[in-house]
Amino acid sequence: MKWSSKITKVEPNHLVTKGYRQEDLIGNIPYPHVVYLLLKGELPSKEHGKMMDAILTACIDHGVTPPSSMASRVVASGGVPLPTAVAAGVLSIGDAHGGAIEKGAKFLQEGIARMKEEGKSIDEIAKILVTESRKQKKRILGFGHRVHTADPRTKKLFSLADELKISGDCIALSKAIEKELVGQTGKTLPINVDGAIAAISSDMGFDWRLGKGFFLLGRVAGLTAQVYEEQTEQKPMRKMFDVDCDYDGPDERDIP
Amino acid sequence: MKWSSKITKVEPNHLVTKGYRQEDLIGNIPYPHVVYLLLKGELPSKEHGKMMDAILTACIDHGVTPPSSMASRVVASGGVPLPTAVAAGVLSIGDAHGGAIEKGAKFLQEGIARMKEEGKSIDEIAKILVTESRKQKKRILGFGHRVHTADPRTKKLFSLADELKISGDCIALSKAIEKELVGQTGKTLPINVDGAIAAISSDMGFDWRLGKGFFLLGRVAGLTAQVYEEQTEQKPMRKMFDVDCDYDGPDERDIP
Amino acid sequence: MKWSSKITKVEPNHLVTKGYRQEDLIGNIPYPHVVYLLLKGELPSKEHGKMMDAILTACIDHGVTPPSSMASRVVASGGVPLPTAVAAGVLSIGDAHGGAIEKGAKFLQEGIARMKEEGKSIDEIAKILVTESRKQKKRILGFGHRVHTADPRTKKLFSLADELKISGDCIALSKAIEKELVGQTGKTLPINVDGAIAAISSDMGFDWRLGKGFFLLGRVAGLTAQVYEEQTEQKPMRKMFDVDCDYDGPDERDIP
Amino acid sequence: MKWSSKITKVEPNHLVTKGYRQEDLIGNIPYPHVVYLLLKGELPSKEHGKMMDAILTACIDHGVTPPSSMASRVVASGGVPLPTAVAAGVLSIGDAHGGAIEKGAKFLQEGIARMKEEGKSIDEIAKILVTESRKQKKRILGFGHRVHTADPRTKKLFSLADELKISGDCIALSKAIEKELVGQTGKTLPINVDGAIAAISSDMGFDWRLGKGFFLLGRVAGLTAQVYEEQTEQKPMRKMFDVDCDYDGPDERDIP
Repeated sequence: MKWSSKITKVEPNHLVTKGYRQEDLIGNIPYPHVVYLLLKGELPSKEHGKMMDAILTACIDHGVTPPSSMASRVVASGGVPLPTAVAAGVLSIGDAHGGAIEKGAKFLQEGIARMKEEGKSIDEIAKILVTESRKQKKRILGFGHRVHTADPRTKKLFSLADELKISGDCIALSKAIEKELVGQTGKTLPINVDGAIAAISSDMGFDWRLGKGFFLLGRVAGLTAQVYEEQTEQKPMRKMFDVDCDYDGPDERDIP
Repeated sequence: MKWSSKITKVEPNHLVTKGYRQEDLIGNIPYPHVVYLLLKGELPSKEHGKMMDAILTACIDHGVTPPSSMASRVVASGGVPLPTAVAAGVLSIGDAHGGAIEKGAKFLQEGIARMKEEGKSIDEIAKILVTESRKQKKRILGFGHRVHTADPRTKKLFSLADELKISGDCIALSKAIEKELVGQTGKTLPINVDGAIAAISSDMGFDWRLGKGFFLLGRVAGLTAQVYEEQTEQKPMRKMFDVDCDYDGPDERDIP
Repeated sequence: MKWSSKITKVEPNHLVTKGYRQEDLIGNIPYPHVVYLLLKGELPSKEHGKMMDAILTACIDHGVTPPSSMASRVVASGGVPLPTAVAAGVLSIGDAHGGAIEKGAKFLQEGIARMKEEGKSIDEIAKILVTESRKQKKRILGFGHRVHTADPRTKKLFSLADELKISGDCIALSKAIEKELVGQTGKTLPINVDGAIAAISSDMGFDWRLGKGFFLLGRVAGLTAQVYEEQTEQKPMRKMFDVDCDYDGPDERDIP
Repeated sequence: MKWSSKITKVEPNHLVTKGYRQEDLIGNIPYPHVVYLLLKGELPSKEHGKMMDAILTACIDHGVTPPSSMASRVVASGGVPLPTAVAAGVLSIGDAHGGAIEKGAKFLQEGIARMKEEGKSIDEIAKILVTESRKQKKRILGFGHRVHTADPRTKKLFSLADELKISGDCIALSKAIEKELVGQTGKTLPINVDGAIAAISSDMGFDWRLGKGFFLLGRVAGLTAQVYEEQTEQKPMRKMFDVDCDYDGPDERDIP
């Protein structure tokens, strides 16, 4: 049974991660750059490092209501260790919660590949993609938010991407889709924070399969804070909700 | 059902975390400082911020064998989404894996409180604590490692703590215990990376109940990389182990 | 690296669990008896088998509000596979949710051991234990419920335990404590379903460390149903709660 | 925020699940029948109840090597509560581990629907499906096993399904595919236990989306036993593996 791994070489008193001795990384390379190193294999340029830092911070927390916070707090309330409760929040990161980064990035990356293959412009491929998605009644992920119409995180991330000269085809396609959606539907579906990270991480050259990873790497900070607050400020098994739940199953009956 | 939370205020197009607008934090405040903010309520000094960054990096990865990596890779092998597999690794962070930070920090913090109460010196309280623990046959957590005798992470963290003028009573007590252990047992049980983080975070004023939190916040980076590598480089359900397992249960028999 | 296990011998075309060939167990031994076999090493008597079956059913479901159901539904809402969401519910089974079985069983088993050692009667030891717990301001677990004053599950389980001649010292002690609590506090804190399972499983000779196991083994049935209902009847990321959450953290401020 | 649920009505001292009072179910209706009730909405016939019982037992345990057992044991080794470790095992139940029940059942159910639509026989549709899958280089799930060539669980489950008169179109299609696979490939890929449960549960009228649910409902019994054994027979953080892991990442280098 032979394993191989490109991540860390472990020897007594010697830890080498992606080629770098851990004692050299600690305190010398900012943690978000180390995250980049782990996910991409190389340390980032100054610009990419700063962008990665910004992406992590953009994911930290969205209050108590998202499935991840709620799952973490509810599980904490059962009286379990902190990591168990944080992990419960991480479990909720799925296709519908944070998942737009993964699927959005795939969509953009494939869109750009197709654009090049078919010799189209950004605007042309945006029009084609929106038209096709509407015909197939498929939602394009990364647009629209259940709370925000102008998400301050999105705006900030895009302005940083411009400033750091990271903005490329995927961000351009993302913005062209946003415009095309208004044109074709009359409704404004602004790029949300997931969509922004999908576009930016794609222009940074990341594999779309890491999409949910970016979200969870930032969000664990908020989840740890949520669990810590629940554990230190609240009683276990406190009554958390007034869920008004109608039972609409079979009428009461005797067993046969 | 009224909740209250000190973490994030969520309003349409307005996200305020611990008083700061998220768009102000993104790209301006390094992510490890934001983590500090979330766990302590205030942004760190430059020194504390740098130390927090170093702590996160010190936890990133230790190869494929620790329970967390192994759990993440094994679960990934079942064919599940990336966050599910990362969460499985987080679940393994317990009293025996990363747990020495929590218990070690509690031990040091209580030790220092007792030292002050009883008017003792660091060396005196170290002697008392080691003697008592040996009598009660309780292991003092944060000393000794199954692989390293001189963990390069520990050395680096302590030298940073000195340089950043963070070193205080808890670090001093930790080193005094290390010395006392040699004196009383004749064996060298060097402070391990968990013990170092326990001591340093205590001198930074962190609640010991966050101990496992520091570890998980850094380790999720390595776990994400481990899961990504498993998902992209290996086949699902590959044969991972040649476990040589003796069945020593009841002999084969017929049902009654 | 040698492992040993008393659970299952795996050979090509041959699976032996606790001595029995799996093809002999399937369809011949009721599943709750097989659960008993796995946890105790031997197949149950007819009476113990029936009791185990009843215990599993007594744990199946308690609607949408307990932490376990809520965690499972919230995580399902993130758009993840069914087992991921069911596991999230299992994670919430902790000291405060289902945990009274474990701690209650330990308390009863140690109480009976002490009774025998000190040559006391059930009523005498009940009085001592209640008095001591009140002095130490420790709650005796397994008494009182946030919804039920006369839990129909408890009554049924105890009447079955009588009928099946399982009732012994631990059930007797449990009932004596219930009486003593009224006597000493004037308040009625009836044995809850966790307390009943603690007492009954103790009289069946089970290790108290399996306490949370009984609960989870029954509850996964309800959790699977909850997740399936959420996934098939509801939209992902539906608005689940009107949580009225006050932000009481620091006032809004500029970054330094 | 209005919820509705068909599962359990919770009122003080009154718990009604799918129409039945829980105190009536406990001790009167076998637990596997209650599981059936929860997943299908109605109590089973005697035959369906017995089949469900057999399915649960067929999933209980497969020793220490499958991802689920391994994940549970590894996580237990970190020093966490029993439910946390059991949940880690449940997390590994995915497309590649137990997932063939879900995908296999979908394949069979859709195959039978298409057979009826196109007026074909079982043998004809089996031939079409195998031919198409081979052209698309898609594996048909539920055939072949990494350990067993004649899985004793499969044989027993199918003979029970015959005996209980449950065998119908899906089982017939499953067997026809097995034959067709030999014919077209020359290789024997026997129906494995997942494939058998896929076929049988389909003939019992279950939704394929419950596929992984059957597996987890049975397997939690084995996982609970695995965790209990690890916690009571082994030391935390024991050295579990001699993983022979080659580091094939970048060569050791200095930070820039």
